[in-house]
Amino acid sequence: MRIALGIEYDGANFCGWQSQPNLCGVQDALESALKSIAEHEIRIHAAGRTDAGVHAMLQVIHFDTEINRPDSAWVRGVNAFLPETVRVLWSKTVHAESGYDEFHARFSAIRRSYQYLLINAPVGPAILTSKAGWYHLPLDVAAMQNACSHLLGEHDFSAFRASECQAKSPIKTLHEAGIEAHDNALIFSFSANAFLQHQVRNMVGALIYVGNGKNPPEYMQTLLANQDRTLSPPTFSANGLYLTGVEYDKKWSLPVTHRQIQLI
Amino acid sequence: MRIALGIEYDGANFCGWQSQPNLCGVQDALESALKSIAEHEIRIHAAGRTDAGVHAMLQVIHFDTEINRPDSAWVRGVNAFLPETVRVLWSKTVHAESGYDEFHARFSAIRRSYQYLLINAPVGPAILTSKAGWYHLPLDVAAMQNACSHLLGEHDFSAFRASECQAKSPIKTLHEAGIEAHDNALIFSFSANAFLQHQVRNMVGALIYVGNGKNPPEYMQTLLANQDRTLSPPTFSANGLYLTGVEYDKKWSLPVTHRQIQLI
Repeated sequence: MRIALGIEYDGANFCGWQSQPNLCGVQDALESALKSIAEHEIRIHAAGRTDAGVHAMLQVIHFDTEINRPDSAWVRGVNAFLPETVRVLWSKTVHAESGYDEFHARFSAIRRSYQYLLINAPVGPAILTSKAGWYHLPLDVAAMQNACSHLLGEHDFSAFRASECQAKSPIKTLHEAGIEAHDNALIFSFSANAFLQHQVRNMVGALIYVGNGKNPPEYMQTLLANQDRTLSPPTFSANGLYLTGVEYDKKWSLPVTHRQIQLI
Repeated sequence: MRIALGIEYDGANFCGWQSQPNLCGVQDALESALKSIAEHEIRIHAAGRTDAGVHAMLQVIHFDTEINRPDSAWVRGVNAFLPETVRVLWSKTVHAESGYDEFHARFSAIRRSYQYLLINAPVGPAILTSKAGWYHLPLDVAAMQNACSHLLGEHDFSAFRASECQAKSPIKTLHEAGIEAHDNALIFSFSANAFLQHQVRNMVGALIYVGNGKNPPEYMQTLLANQDRTLSPPTFSANGLYLTGVEYDKKWSLPVTHRQIQLI
């Protein structure tokens, strides 16, 4: 049968989502804990493969097993074998009847959401050092919000694409791009059908180059039109990036698949 | 001259505030960084000596030096020598004219404020694992708020006092005791002239024994009357505790001395 899990993790002490020979990936920790419950090797598939240092308030994964265990075993049981910085939030059997679609954490996902937490203050954060990005000069949030609007919709996002990105196409549809200010903390929210590698961190970097007055909001149009990563501002820190949700067709009846960041 | 500093730190990787022979205290990190700027040994004094794992949104310290440095050296300069999890937020010269009182971070403090972040959910926090306490059963926040009201005012707080506490008297005056709920996160706020060792963590532990239905709100009166730590519920985790402010007489003209933890 096929099981879907909702996962939260702190990316600070992992080398990223993906399994690595030295087992430093979040995937490695999860596959090892799942094996302890299933008593056989488990291979998991995730909605989004996050980079080193990137967190997930809500990641969705699936795996196949012939072992019949109650949902609580896939939650509390697996959590007992995980480091404290990775938690299974829920479990749901998504085994399809023959003749129907099969659920796939990655390929069934319709939309992904990310948030970016940026501390905008003269001194960097101590308590949130691995949980936030930091920019020391004052930022014009209204100008950045205006700049966000130029990113919405379907575009070729090559300007914001990492050179090692393996996506088939640089054309993605951005459904949400906004910024909320809470005192000296800025929360950027983005959602899209899919994101290119480093796309959110690169967009945040470019938006900061508007907020600090270096460029007008229309700079985003220029970058998009250039389609050239080398002409865009630097990638911003992974520390402030959170995968906050994955949307699927309602027919899968998954539990909560969106969780916004709470502490700033 | 005497210099006061406002400090933020993440207590997770320190053995507490106080200097230790193996240099694992926050005080050790600060004294070492200050020495790099002052070019002589520096001894610092703090408003409150926090335990291992306890954080400070705002701690106030002072030290004496004959070296004349601009405020920026005591902020940006010292920060360059500190681990990322400790930050100097501001610096203020508090050298008193002869014949006037001298400022002392600990003895001049009129009031201390703490907040406690508790995640109340079936599954513990992954991202905030070192930043929050966790309780897995549902809590009745209204009953806990009612219980808080019994703690307000001047009491003998022996019921909430660690056995190793060195305070001269167990009688303290609690000016504020309240709880705010934000979804599944509870923020407890306390302020008092001073706190006994473990007092906040012990009060949170007792309030949880009201919230989970084991005891009525008046249980707080019973505990206070008992004056016996051994009859009180267990000490709650240090992970969720934050020193959030220290109040001084306005004559010292200190910059910001209160910073609340922020949830959205």
